[in-house]
Amino acid sequence: MGTAPKTNRGTARRKTLLRSAEKVIGEKGFASASIAEITRDAETALGTFYIYFASKEQVFRELVVEMGTLTRRVMTDAVTGAPDRLEAERRGLLAFLRFVAERPSLYRIVEQARFVDPEAYRDYFSRFAQAYRDQLLRAEQSGEIRPGDAEVRAWALMGIAKNLGDRFVLWEERDDLDAIADAAFDMIRDGLSP
Amino acid sequence: MGTAPKTNRGTARRKTLLRSAEKVIGEKGFASASIAEITRDAETALGTFYIYFASKEQVFRELVVEMGTLTRRVMTDAVTGAPDRLEAERRGLLAFLRFVAERPSLYRIVEQARFVDPEAYRDYFSRFAQAYRDQLLRAEQSGEIRPGDAEVRAWALMGIAKNLGDRFVLWEERDDLDAIADAAFDMIRDGLSP
Repeated sequence: MGTAPKTNRGTARRKTLLRSAEKVIGEKGFASASIAEITRDAETALGTFYIYFASKEQVFRELVVEMGTLTRRVMTDAVTGAPDRLEAERRGLLAFLRFVAERPSLYRIVEQARFVDPEAYRDYFSRFAQAYRDQLLRAEQSGEIRPGDAEVRAWALMGIAKNLGDRFVLWEERDDLDAIADAAFDMIRDGLSP
Repeated sequence: MGTAPKTNRGTARRKTLLRSAEKVIGEKGFASASIAEITRDAETALGTFYIYFASKEQVFRELVVEMGTLTRRVMTDAVTGAPDRLEAERRGLLAFLRFVAERPSLYRIVEQARFVDPEAYRDYFSRFAQAYRDQLLRAEQSGEIRPGDAEVRAWALMGIAKNLGDRFVLWEERDDLDAIADAAFDMIRDGLSP
């Protein structure tokens, strides 16, 4: 996606533009963000943007795809080495909340995609859900979790992570993310039943 | 909010405009929807809009508030008479999914509020979460559910409902909402632990 730069300097400039786009679009919203603001933030000429990107839509989509790659990597790193699926759930949830705290603008960009680029939005979550469902199915087969509808569970668990990210990270910037992840995990593990 | 009509005919016309605004903004998105389109859909003159609403922003906010009132009513009706909190959770989740299926444009409008009117968006979910948390606290005190962090649980449970609404109602328009609610409820009740 976009034009691949041929030099190291080009690669660096493209990266700078991408980070400025993340910042400006994340803060102002896609509709209000202008390419002029992005290049101003990146300290380059307006025309430079078009060497690397065809449009604001294109840089936006690239940010959504980047967020997908990053989130998957963060989650994979977090759960690697977990002794079982339940512990992987706890670690994954906490890692997600920490990632939202670290990159709030990337997270906001994904939510904007719901309206700016609905296809990219669905792709983002569907790809994520597919991998999640497969992990739940494997855990069910190995007896690490109770049998159940892996597809519904995957979307339900993603919904928990997203909503806690909104409430406790984006809105309130809480610093006790460990405690929040633990409290949610308690319900994920054992349910509400007394 | 808005100008209260003085006649029955005025009340009816205002209602028609509100439904047209729901339809047009729900389908096109807030930024793309024009007041001209709304009045065309309502079969009134463009100027009529301004008798009842000050701006597109105002009609939008009124739709978000309306969605809040409606959702709370639907959920209250659904859980009234439930023998305990767990059954109320199951009924509430199913009622929510059915409501999204019935009024997809109102649901989409709330999600647009995240960017169009962040204050209305937070109000919407915070008000909902507060009532939810209180219900969970009462259920905990009466021993209907295990003790836990009611605030985190309320947001986690809302996240499940929202994400299942996106995936299985808005995107796929599934007609087996009972089975989906049951599958999610199974996890809410007993967790993933084997």
